[in-house]
Amino acid sequence: MRIPILKLHDCLLVSIQWELDDQTALQFQEDLLHKIHETSARGVVIDFTSIDFIDSFIAKVLGDVISMSRLMGAKVVITGIQPAVAITLIELGIHLEEVITALDLEKGLEKLQRELGD
Amino acid sequence: MRIPILKLHDCLLVSIQWELDDQTALQFQEDLLHKIHETSARGVVIDFTSIDFIDSFIAKVLGDVISMSRLMGAKVVITGIQPAVAITLIELGIHLEEVITALDLEKGLEKLQRELGD
Repeated sequence: MRIPILKLHDCLLVSIQWELDDQTALQFQEDLLHKIHETSARGVVIDFTSIDFIDSFIAKVLGDVISMSRLMGAKVVITGIQPAVAITLIELGIHLEEVITALDLEKGLEKLQRELGD
Repeated sequence: MRIPILKLHDCLLVSIQWELDDQTALQFQEDLLHKIHETSARGVVIDFTSIDFIDSFIAKVLGDVISMSRLMGAKVVITGIQPAVAITLIELGIHLEEVITALDLEKGLEKLQRELGD
């Protein structure tokens, strides 16, 4: 299974709607970085609305992919983080301090477009 | 595997990026109709850009889900249909005459928003 990555103008949209297994998470990491490179995307919105639990491995992979995307020059917005996911991330020391957050996909996309100066 | 369905304002976005198996296609049909009901979406964009081949079962399921979505009151736009997919659809008698089509996701979303009068 692979997670579809949608391109909308100069942004990529990803919605993670089901619990990820380790292989899918790693595949997603690779796919997202390739897609940023391939499309010259300036921003990425990753929506976690439907995820109410993540384990430590997945949390680390997601933290990494966000840092990697930033390194490649894409602004990252994460949306819809639920309480248990926020707890797991912080407990694992994944603070994502420079990441923009928003309540849902629409608001995330708006914030991203403001940041990108559109 | 299930196909994520993204909600953006009053539209739903779906990008089908890998060949569907029969079970996934049927699950997608059910998920999309539920999501239209749940979100009161007025429009749906389904992007096929990455699909270069579909078999007759999948074509029928997709044709059906498009007709069903219309019945439920959502305008459907399909985007990125590749030559082989267009051939399969027409050969199977799935003409999708009342469906709006566009080259890619961005253009599809623009057409849909014009149609919806936004």
